Amino acid sequence: MKDINARSEFPFESLRFREVDGIPELVLAVVQDFRTNEVLMVAHTNREAIEKTIETGRMHYFSTSRKKLWLKGERSGNVQIVREIYIDCDGDALLFKVEQKGGACHKGYRSCFFRRIEGSEIRIAGRKVFNPDEVY
Amino acid sequence: MKDINARSEFPFESLRFREVDGIPELVLAVVQDFRTNEVLMVAHTNREAIEKTIETGRMHYFSTSRKKLWLKGERSGNVQIVREIYIDCDGDALLFKVEQKGGACHKGYRSCFFRRIEGSEIRIAGRKVFNPDEVY
Repeated sequence: MKDINARSEFPFESLRFREVDGIPELVLAVVQDFRTNEVLMVAHTNREAIEKTIETGRMHYFSTSRKKLWLKGERSGNVQIVREIYIDCDGDALLFKVEQKGGACHKGYRSCFFRRIEGSEIRIAGRKVFNPDEVY
Repeated sequence: MKDINARSEFPFESLRFREVDGIPELVLAVVQDFRTNEVLMVAHTNREAIEKTIETGRMHYFSTSRKKLWLKGERSGNVQIVREIYIDCDGDALLFKVEQKGGACHKGYRSCFFRRIEGSEIRIAGRKVFNPDEVY
């Protein structure tokens, strides 16, 4: 992607930040496998996390539970290399197409959406790609 | 999808609701074309909107701006027929695979993510499928 490494080169003025569970200035990040279009995860990001993502070419988020910046794959090695970024019509969500190393889910699955809802039941439908006990 | 029409048959106890911009008890809905896997939009839903979605087989949301339940396509006819539902690992997001009539975006595009970010620029990259002036 052009200029992915240029610091802070990003149209921040087009974003519409929201407050989630009392944490201000967040934007949604939907993350999709750039090859298969599988949705891998959704998480929150903010200005600082987007700057780090652009600087490094690797997905960073803002953790609403730990209340801190977070490099995806820092411990596990399952980093996400950014290929393309899209913004939605009202500017409160970004779509990142990424090259996912290993799996996105801390439970060992390729995607965090590994459970399908069937009526009132939940069934495992995703692909397990690593053993979380060996990684975390 | 099995039992899609059964009223309230849904594992609500697995959801983790969040407060967004002061509006409580919301869950994220990521919506994907069931044929192409294109991400069409992301919006908020809640218990009542999920119940309506399950009852009717058509996507309903909770509008955080208008603060009310919303049937997607009510005015435009661009309804979304639910084919599959997935839940993510921490239960604060659902992924709906849908059959999208027309386009998802009120600006006339197939997907709300019709703008690609290239450095500090934003370029139109999506497919326009209807004229919003004729629909809204």
